Amino acid sequence: MKKSLGAKTLAQPTPVWVIGSYDAHGKPNIMTIAWGGICCSQPPCVTISLRKATYTYECIKEHKAYTVNIPSAAMAKEADYVGTISGRNVDKFSMTKLTPIRSEMVDAPYIQEFPVVIECRVLHTFEIGLHTQFIGEIMDVKAEESVLGEQGVPDMLKVKPFVFDTGQSAYYEIGQRIGKAFSIGKKA
Amino acid sequence: MKKSLGAKTLAQPTPVWVIGSYDAHGKPNIMTIAWGGICCSQPPCVTISLRKATYTYECIKEHKAYTVNIPSAAMAKEADYVGTISGRNVDKFSMTKLTPIRSEMVDAPYIQEFPVVIECRVLHTFEIGLHTQFIGEIMDVKAEESVLGEQGVPDMLKVKPFVFDTGQSAYYEIGQRIGKAFSIGKKA
Repeated sequence: MKKSLGAKTLAQPTPVWVIGSYDAHGKPNIMTIAWGGICCSQPPCVTISLRKATYTYECIKEHKAYTVNIPSAAMAKEADYVGTISGRNVDKFSMTKLTPIRSEMVDAPYIQEFPVVIECRVLHTFEIGLHTQFIGEIMDVKAEESVLGEQGVPDMLKVKPFVFDTGQSAYYEIGQRIGKAFSIGKKA
Repeated sequence: MKKSLGAKTLAQPTPVWVIGSYDAHGKPNIMTIAWGGICCSQPPCVTISLRKATYTYECIKEHKAYTVNIPSAAMAKEADYVGTISGRNVDKFSMTKLTPIRSEMVDAPYIQEFPVVIECRVLHTFEIGLHTQFIGEIMDVKAEESVLGEQGVPDMLKVKPFVFDTGQSAYYEIGQRIGKAFSIGKKA
């Protein structure tokens, strides 16, 4: 017998991604989000949801582009910090000593120190309610060679991304490998 | 210096959620997805993306409702299995010995054995490309008492959800707690 908890955003887990964009003056800005995910394979797209009140919302509206920067758990403090203040008031890159790199693919900056970055151009903007959903077409993914595994793609145990537990408002590391997808179920 | 990997859906991590729906004959069906996430806080919404070719796509189009069932790592085999076959051909509930429970909130079944379930009614349907995005308003979240932690909300270390690494096509457990969100960055 399950207990009803009400109409709440208690889905687990959610990603912790840092969104890069330029403001109207060309200043690079970053903001942490947990409302997002891949939403299409062809064209490859990743969606992020932002409140209109955020500075990043204005920046993306202006430049129609953003980057999704995946922090490793070692950068959890920086990722948390840039989710607690507004880029209207501070230069988050200088505050965190992170380095903005201008994307050659889209009109947005990415974070040099983060192991994996995804460069997106805005394909659609959907108003849902408090949050606006941006659908970004993935133009390129860039990663440090040191985090690549089999087949030359990022290996979760090398990237060491982390996740957000919405209900308890806490971050968790990625743990042990369970097994291969589209495979372990066949042995059941 | 980062290496370019091309325009691919290499975002990490992605969730592993099992979607519950009824077909046109009222048969309960389930399917595993990794393309999804929370997309709005008010109204509380969770989005999932499906290919039109899937049976679940037809089911959701018919009933305008679905459930998001969060498996614990102990159910990774069952979750993997229901992502490898179509509900057109088999009864996935009987194959996995999982139990469908009719939601009182929406016209969809949820999985009794999974620790957390989210009941959604379709608010919007957006065509992106190969995938169609359903935006589901969260009508209720139900959880086993045994997975509730502080403040009566699901605790990640008790639910033990797991994640998907898209590039390497593998599943990983959730690991250690890093710290409190909107807090650990302030000490930096």
